[in-house]
Amino acid sequence: MFDTMRAHNFGAGPCTLPLEVLEEARAEFVDFRGTGMSVIELSHRSPEYEAVHDEALALTRDVAEAPDDFEVLFIQGGATLQFAMVPMNLLQPGEKGAYIVSGSWGKRALEDATPHGEMYAAWDGRADGYTRMPSTHEVSVKPGTRYLHVTTNETIGGIRLVELPSVPVPLVADMSSDYLARPIQWDRYDLIYGGVQKNLAPAGMAVVFARKSALAGARTDLGSFLRYGWHADNRSLGHTPPMFPIYLMGKVLKLIKSKGGVRGLESEAAAKAERLYSVIDGSDGYYRSPVEAAHRSHMNVVFRLPDEDAEARFLKEADAAHFVGLKGHRSVGGCRASTYAALAMSSVESLAEFMTSFQAANA
Amino acid sequence: MFDTMRAHNFGAGPCTLPLEVLEEARAEFVDFRGTGMSVIELSHRSPEYEAVHDEALALTRDVAEAPDDFEVLFIQGGATLQFAMVPMNLLQPGEKGAYIVSGSWGKRALEDATPHGEMYAAWDGRADGYTRMPSTHEVSVKPGTRYLHVTTNETIGGIRLVELPSVPVPLVADMSSDYLARPIQWDRYDLIYGGVQKNLAPAGMAVVFARKSALAGARTDLGSFLRYGWHADNRSLGHTPPMFPIYLMGKVLKLIKSKGGVRGLESEAAAKAERLYSVIDGSDGYYRSPVEAAHRSHMNVVFRLPDEDAEARFLKEADAAHFVGLKGHRSVGGCRASTYAALAMSSVESLAEFMTSFQAANA
Repeated sequence: MFDTMRAHNFGAGPCTLPLEVLEEARAEFVDFRGTGMSVIELSHRSPEYEAVHDEALALTRDVAEAPDDFEVLFIQGGATLQFAMVPMNLLQPGEKGAYIVSGSWGKRALEDATPHGEMYAAWDGRADGYTRMPSTHEVSVKPGTRYLHVTTNETIGGIRLVELPSVPVPLVADMSSDYLARPIQWDRYDLIYGGVQKNLAPAGMAVVFARKSALAGARTDLGSFLRYGWHADNRSLGHTPPMFPIYLMGKVLKLIKSKGGVRGLESEAAAKAERLYSVIDGSDGYYRSPVEAAHRSHMNVVFRLPDEDAEARFLKEADAAHFVGLKGHRSVGGCRASTYAALAMSSVESLAEFMTSFQAANA
Repeated sequence: MFDTMRAHNFGAGPCTLPLEVLEEARAEFVDFRGTGMSVIELSHRSPEYEAVHDEALALTRDVAEAPDDFEVLFIQGGATLQFAMVPMNLLQPGEKGAYIVSGSWGKRALEDATPHGEMYAAWDGRADGYTRMPSTHEVSVKPGTRYLHVTTNETIGGIRLVELPSVPVPLVADMSSDYLARPIQWDRYDLIYGGVQKNLAPAGMAVVFARKSALAGARTDLGSFLRYGWHADNRSLGHTPPMFPIYLMGKVLKLIKSKGGVRGLESEAAAKAERLYSVIDGSDGYYRSPVEAAHRSHMNVVFRLPDEDAEARFLKEADAAHFVGLKGHRSVGGCRASTYAALAMSSVESLAEFMTSFQAANA
């Protein structure tokens, strides 16, 4: 089958997936392994699907290096539903949830949690325009706090959490935009969640890691879907699961595993991001990173040009050259190159060269 | 591309999808309309995806014949999350939710709603083994009731609601297993929901129809994902939507529309079900329908053989003859042929013939 040129997809998510995974899925799309059915037509109670499901669960645990005292859950609704499920499950009456407001997503997590208990910002980066993460001494946790919520990577601001704040409560993390792209400090967390549509799979669910002891103390006065314990008790098969994202994620994880797992992704991500930051830093100020160097994201490389006219021209020419998704988020403007797991180094190299040529022609 | 024989998929869901839709999706799976990306790699904010999304929303409204005073929403989590979202949104303090417990799904809806307010069974069919739906005079609605919840088709029991109970409160319906397979009496409902994985699309979301005036009076003290109003205000694009089910559903709905829409599906469903019921009724009691004739489902044809040995043999031979998914639900046993929208009449004809031959050889 002939395909047109593959785009260099720098979109912030949904984003590029490995071409070999897409081609494999296409080959078996109408007839899944001789069943005479598509994988999306299988019963979720069939042995064929259960094998896909269990393999995806096992690979998720394996690649994440998740210890046995964590449950691995597949839950529809993305990170957005998790913003509410976290406090609904973890907070007992009288307990508080603390949030690090490190940008748009930390803010959304706090806002969406607020109807479900007593929440507060343990740190807010607004004064610095959300260009850095806090140091431990800036984070203030009140008595009666159940957890401190962090966003490990701010997709819009382009910053990442390098050092976890040292606080006397367990952490909860939204890892959507750098999920499995670096090792997780499991001993610090009670719960981790993230939408899968950046590094792992098509949109349609979150992967949640929940510490078993935290679930044992969780609230139970909720409809079954809203209880982590229900998903755990049913291997995320208590209702019809999002079979297609789970199926594709299994293939993606197998590939990630073959390339060195979370540690392989970590070095790849660093190399891709550094290639772009080196162009920015070597541009004599033509390109400019608005964030503090130590907190620069390895997933979302945010940059500005000398003025908005130059940015508009840059985006227009990039588009014509098959670079997709380089426009910064509408709330902040500028440019952003997202370099998620499946984006090839060759695409990054092409963009680096394009940036250099553009500067030469326009500076 | 060569495919093996297509299975006769009588599964209760996920279930068969139109072959032409699967083939179309396969053809554009790696390169969606010249973008150089798969549809699952597009940004949900891209014009390409927004066109897919808006077309699916419009087709859903169109095929359902939904009036303008209803919102059409795509919400991850299937019917299971709706069991909780309905009372969380619709019940104000002091109001009650009434439920018709017509089988496994009516029961689940009531149980899952119970943590979220004061709920009660307005009728329970347990005494008759859930073999029929109630008449209006059997349904008792208490003062202070906000809605009466009905399940229009019980997938496991194989019964359907033919006449809506006449009560002084609006209805809320779970239509998962006969969604869009018959016209909807819009004036009776405040809210309708259903998982898409039977008649419409791969698993991964519910379609919700919500009366605008009901949303205006809904609760707002919930995280955004849990508020119908948030999905409505954002055209179901407030977060990354389940793009692949939405994309495929658009194709399925286009096909349904070309075949006469909801009314076309209604006659097709009746013809398919009647073909199987006629074998059952003409079998001199070899096959037996456990449900009341007037309430027989047009989607899930449940039947028994003389004994469990005969049932086991029947299922084994059916399996060898490429009939998939005929085993009854584990909670009730027996056999069940689900004849959802995309199942071809020719598959029903083949099964009818198989049943007749099996009886001749085994009676």
